[in-house]
Amino acid sequence: MKVEGRWRRAIEPADDAVIVLDQARLPYEIGWLRLASLDDFARAIRDMHVRGAPLIGATAAYGVAHAVRRDAATLDRACEVLAATRPTAVNLAWALAEMRRRLAEVGPDGALAAAAQICDEEVARCEAIGDHGLALLRERRQPVRILTHCNAGWLATVDWGTALAPIYKAHEAGIAVHVWVDETRPRNQGLLTAWELAQHGVPHTVIADNAGGHLMQRGEVDLCIVGTDRTTRHGDVCNKIGTYLKALAAHDCGVPFYVAAPSPSIDWSCDDARDIPIEERSADEVRTLAGVKLTDSPVANPAFDVTPRRLVTGIITERGVSEPNALAAHFGRSP
Amino acid sequence: MKVEGRWRRAIEPADDAVIVLDQARLPYEIGWLRLASLDDFARAIRDMHVRGAPLIGATAAYGVAHAVRRDAATLDRACEVLAATRPTAVNLAWALAEMRRRLAEVGPDGALAAAAQICDEEVARCEAIGDHGLALLRERRQPVRILTHCNAGWLATVDWGTALAPIYKAHEAGIAVHVWVDETRPRNQGLLTAWELAQHGVPHTVIADNAGGHLMQRGEVDLCIVGTDRTTRHGDVCNKIGTYLKALAAHDCGVPFYVAAPSPSIDWSCDDARDIPIEERSADEVRTLAGVKLTDSPVANPAFDVTPRRLVTGIITERGVSEPNALAAHFGRSP
Repeated sequence: MKVEGRWRRAIEPADDAVIVLDQARLPYEIGWLRLASLDDFARAIRDMHVRGAPLIGATAAYGVAHAVRRDAATLDRACEVLAATRPTAVNLAWALAEMRRRLAEVGPDGALAAAAQICDEEVARCEAIGDHGLALLRERRQPVRILTHCNAGWLATVDWGTALAPIYKAHEAGIAVHVWVDETRPRNQGLLTAWELAQHGVPHTVIADNAGGHLMQRGEVDLCIVGTDRTTRHGDVCNKIGTYLKALAAHDCGVPFYVAAPSPSIDWSCDDARDIPIEERSADEVRTLAGVKLTDSPVANPAFDVTPRRLVTGIITERGVSEPNALAAHFGRSP
Repeated sequence: MKVEGRWRRAIEPADDAVIVLDQARLPYEIGWLRLASLDDFARAIRDMHVRGAPLIGATAAYGVAHAVRRDAATLDRACEVLAATRPTAVNLAWALAEMRRRLAEVGPDGALAAAAQICDEEVARCEAIGDHGLALLRERRQPVRILTHCNAGWLATVDWGTALAPIYKAHEAGIAVHVWVDETRPRNQGLLTAWELAQHGVPHTVIADNAGGHLMQRGEVDLCIVGTDRTTRHGDVCNKIGTYLKALAAHDCGVPFYVAAPSPSIDWSCDDARDIPIEERSADEVRTLAGVKLTDSPVANPAFDVTPRRLVTGIITERGVSEPNALAAHFGRSP
């Protein structure tokens, strides 16, 4: 997608490294980071220079690739170090397992190509989600007013995004859309969403996380679309903290609530969403903003919550739109 | 209540003026403002140097008193100017009507005493709310874990607070409490709550507004108590934006949701909460924090929302705890 008019991906190969857009500096500053060593990759994920479940997976895939390309014996250690960076997004474990599987076939010389292929497949999944979501938006009176939480745009994936892919597709198809962008405290990833949408000329309005329920009560939201860091086989959705509150409001106000989930975000082994590890992040994220100290009080900072499937209208995957309960069947798996 | 160990009220008379704690500078700096002219009073309310529905009423009462004490003919103009400062809190209109009524009895010479009496009555109402709420907290296993949104403490009233009054009463009675403090974007009034609680040694933890639903799902909240800017005769509750989302989560998780409402916050003339004017505040409140520009994108900033009575367990007034539907009967009024 576009960065200052140029088409880029959120992660791109570059000789013996990759280049990523540094999301810790966005939207204040556009800068790129070069990741080459295992440490570089692990730090970039842990400190959220890259973020978003699919992009975490893609970055980890390249992390493994660069490690084994230098020394094939480091595969286990690379997987261990990368797996420990962040706990909630299942895409990370998925990408590491995929790299192991593919490396067993192609060997270390094929490592970079394997990581590149994982990225290309991710882009294809996101574009398919965009097309399936577009069909949902086409049905509606324009402008279609969509609320989203956090950033599940191309910055969070490799390209297109998950929740934002249908919005980009609609915008390209000439369908008038307007996006309500939740600020998404404490890390303000909504500002990344606003930045992305501004780069593409998609009309949008930033709101405090507190405002979405009121807008839904007033009939100013046609539907919600969010991403997910881990969705269970039964369709319960773990996503950025606060998603549950918006799903409750959507349910209360009769607003459809969709989750855009590429299949690597689905944890087929997870039966009970209460088993999903919820990352507790640093108090400083709540306590300090852009160098300004907000409070000295104790702080709690859970980074994700779980939206029960009863509040979810549909899950948009690369295969189409599925009811949460039918997700496993949709992928030909036993429920 | 306490400011650096000294007992103070949020508004205090001082010769031919009043002194208020400047809440625009809290919690970063403790400063006091002197309000003497009608302009001073109007600006203090409009620019939120004083805030909180009961304190807005108390400040307006003193604003009228100082205006008519200088020139009795300015009563109408003073009421008009002050009424236009902020639209949502009904305490403002209530206090202006009360001053008119009392001035008709005591004349301009009794104006300051009338305003002081309104403040004393507000304090008595808040203390009564504290005692009634204390009875609710006594029943529970300790520590009683309470979630509150915005600031409905003594800073928002004259003393004691509304939502925080039961918490202060419980703390004084030796009941162990712990308060989850919603940050309350965009103006971060939760930081005022944290500051207040810290001054009194009440254990508390600040959380992003997004986190409360997750904590309720996890069984970490025993009850919610919030204030209100205007509650209808039928018990629908207008309060700081985001209150509705917490009420939805409380309802979904079986957590009791209480509203602390001194009677001047009840709009007996309001039949339909949709008629309550919802203040739209400056985009800069969302766009900028402590001088740091967060985004250039368009912003919407509604400051209040309405929690329907079906989500409210009880309304704590100076008369006791009432079901929302029984509020009018509780005050001997026809429903």
